[in-house]
Amino acid sequence: MTDPGSTGVTVLGLGAMGSTLAATLLDAGHDVTVWNRSPERAAGLSARGAEAAAAVGTAVAAHPLTVACLLDHASVHETLDPVIAGMRGSTLLNVTTTTPNEARELDTWAAGHGVRYLDGAIMATPSMIGTPEASILYSGSAEVFADLRPVLDRWATSTYDGEDSGLASLFDLAMLSGMYTMFAGFLHGAAMAGSAGMTATEFAARATPFLSAMTFAFAHDAAVVDGGDYTVAGQQSLDFSDLSHIVRASEEQGVAPVPVAAVQELISKQIAQGYGAEGFARIYESLRTDRTDRTDRTDGTDGTDRVETLR
Amino acid sequence: MTDPGSTGVTVLGLGAMGSTLAATLLDAGHDVTVWNRSPERAAGLSARGAEAAAAVGTAVAAHPLTVACLLDHASVHETLDPVIAGMRGSTLLNVTTTTPNEARELDTWAAGHGVRYLDGAIMATPSMIGTPEASILYSGSAEVFADLRPVLDRWATSTYDGEDSGLASLFDLAMLSGMYTMFAGFLHGAAMAGSAGMTATEFAARATPFLSAMTFAFAHDAAVVDGGDYTVAGQQSLDFSDLSHIVRASEEQGVAPVPVAAVQELISKQIAQGYGAEGFARIYESLRTDRTDRTDRTDGTDGTDRVETLR
Ligand SMILES: NC(=O)c1ccc[n+]([C@@H]2O[C@H](COP(=O)([O-])OP(=O)(O)OC[C@H]3O[C@@H](n4cnc5c(N)ncnc54)[C@H](OP(=O)(O)O)[C@@H]3O)[C@@H](O)[C@H]2O)c1
Ligand SMILES: NC(=O)c1ccc[n+]([C@@H]2O[C@H](COP(=O)([O-])OP(=O)(O)OC[C@H]3O[C@@H](n4cnc5c(N)ncnc54)[C@H](OP(=O)(O)O)[C@@H]3O)[C@@H](O)[C@H]2O)c1
Repeated sequence: MTDPGSTGVTVLGLGAMGSTLAATLLDAGHDVTVWNRSPERAAGLSARGAEAAAAVGTAVAAHPLTVACLLDHASVHETLDPVIAGMRGSTLLNVTTTTPNEARELDTWAAGHGVRYLDGAIMATPSMIGTPEASILYSGSAEVFADLRPVLDRWATSTYDGEDSGLASLFDLAMLSGMYTMFAGFLHGAAMAGSAGMTATEFAARATPFLSAMTFAFAHDAAVVDGGDYTVAGQQSLDFSDLSHIVRASEEQGVAPVPVAAVQELISKQIAQGYGAEGFARIYESLRTDRTDRTDRTDGTDGTDRVETLR
Repeated sequence: MTDPGSTGVTVLGLGAMGSTLAATLLDAGHDVTVWNRSPERAAGLSARGAEAAAAVGTAVAAHPLTVACLLDHASVHETLDPVIAGMRGSTLLNVTTTTPNEARELDTWAAGHGVRYLDGAIMATPSMIGTPEASILYSGSAEVFADLRPVLDRWATSTYDGEDSGLASLFDLAMLSGMYTMFAGFLHGAAMAGSAGMTATEFAARATPFLSAMTFAFAHDAAVVDGGDYTVAGQQSLDFSDLSHIVRASEEQGVAPVPVAAVQELISKQIAQGYGAEGFARIYESLRTDRTDRTDRTDGTDGTDRVETLR
């Protein structure tokens, strides 16, 4: 690319996110060619100055950089398999949500066709795109990331996660797992409060500042996980964290305890293995199925010192 | 009580929390009598001016107000069953963690012995007690709450939740369900990131501001739940929120998907019932087992407008 700051870009996929990415580049003065499976979705962008390509092959030939923002991994192959052979020497930036292994597969497949590949994971909603609050994670070729930087920075705060093209997706999904699990925990709490007549709005007013504040504990648990010693002082023990009473109360109130019962499953597993006196962060070991226990400290330290979180 | 601001108080249970509650009252100038099953735990408080009672009967007879801060519901009965008959006319404040039904049972049991009862749920760690950041919820007799207010306000910000003595415990457990589920979601994300070599500390540095910020969405979901119409515009649909790819990526990375799989179970249940185009907040209906679906809108609205949260 000669002047990457105003390089031409092809955007495939004009859903909520793809059309926003394209519009942001248009507004920044880039030449933009767009394509969407259902052609009518290109109308708005055409009116704003984009070139609407009738065929995907025409679209990918228009510029040295193609951005794919489609539904999922399968739709990327469905769209690009017929035209990838003609893309040799160009660059493919895929911001479609995939699993890490799917991103790695796309990278290998693109490389096999002489196409440079970068994977992106968008941590933002369409309305956040173009603001510094939006974050997009990238992984794969560091060289491609550096080359595309002037384009990428139009959209969001760009973070490069490493050469393994699966990393952006992995970190994205890891964050989203935390987010959706947190949402489910909130809604379970709202259902419990609702069983006694409290509105969900009233519960949210109480739970939002509380849960937001309690995120301070993540760093503490993380330090324990990284240290690998779940017996260090200052932790709340698994025995103390036993959530059986919450599961029971939920059932008594006619609320399915699904989210909190899943947490209790992780806790019970460690207690059953004899680690009840160790810290709550040890549920991390219930999650890692790819290795045997890193620690076998059943050394009689009582573990009753507790981290500053609530029972 | 003649001068409730400096009334005498008996505290039963001198664990981490009970001893802190007693110490705070001592520092504020109250006469405090303490009792603990294992008597040696009273030594520190004795040295600070508390009266250490050798027998629980002596302890509860010393003052018109007894505070129970024991392990659980069973330990409250084990401790007070032998002496409750002698407590007629006095007041029992129970801040031991119980289920709502257990709190209601204690209220009825105390009333049967002519003992006034108030239930409390402590939303604080011992080190927070005595600061405005500490919150204690109360439910049961409004009259008792009003009478005890000068004592209660020594410890924390006091909130009265209603006459049903189970409410304080219910709201407490509802908040804690949200908190522990959030913690498990964070640790699951950390395990996923960890499977690619990221430290939990590095993941916490990224996840903490993100998850804290995403708590803004609680109020939005709550408004949808309260409105009872999961088809209103501005929501992310259940189809769009399908977390199968996160569950799959987790398994591929050697991480048990337990927390996120529980969320997906709630999502799948609604999608299977034909509500995939409706909003994510509809998982609330997967949780409420005490009623049939409040809504049966399969009215063809496409539900593709999405709330401003991330996929
Ligand atoms: N929206 C967000 O908040 C957000 C946030 C982060 C990441 N993302 C990711 O960004 C990607 C796009 O999301 P979006 O919000 O734009 O989704 P969307 O509004 O549902 O749009 C989906 C797009 O994919 C196209 N598509 C679906 N199946 C296809 C196929 N088999 N072949 C060709 N095109 C196909 C659709 O074309 P038609 O118009 O022809 O159906 C449409 O352009 C997804 O991977 C999503 O996870 C979105
Ligand atoms: N610590 C917190 O951060 C926190 C926060 C909110 C709520 N709470 C609640 O406050 C209560 C006390 O917590 P804690 O932190 O003080 O617990 P703790 O340090 O484990 O102390 C437990 C207390 O209960 C007593 N006990 C246990 N079983 C008993 C029995 N059968 N009969 C008589 N006494 C018995 C213990 O006496 P021995 O010394 O003889 O064993 C000890 O005094 C719990 O319900 C807890 O859920 C605590």
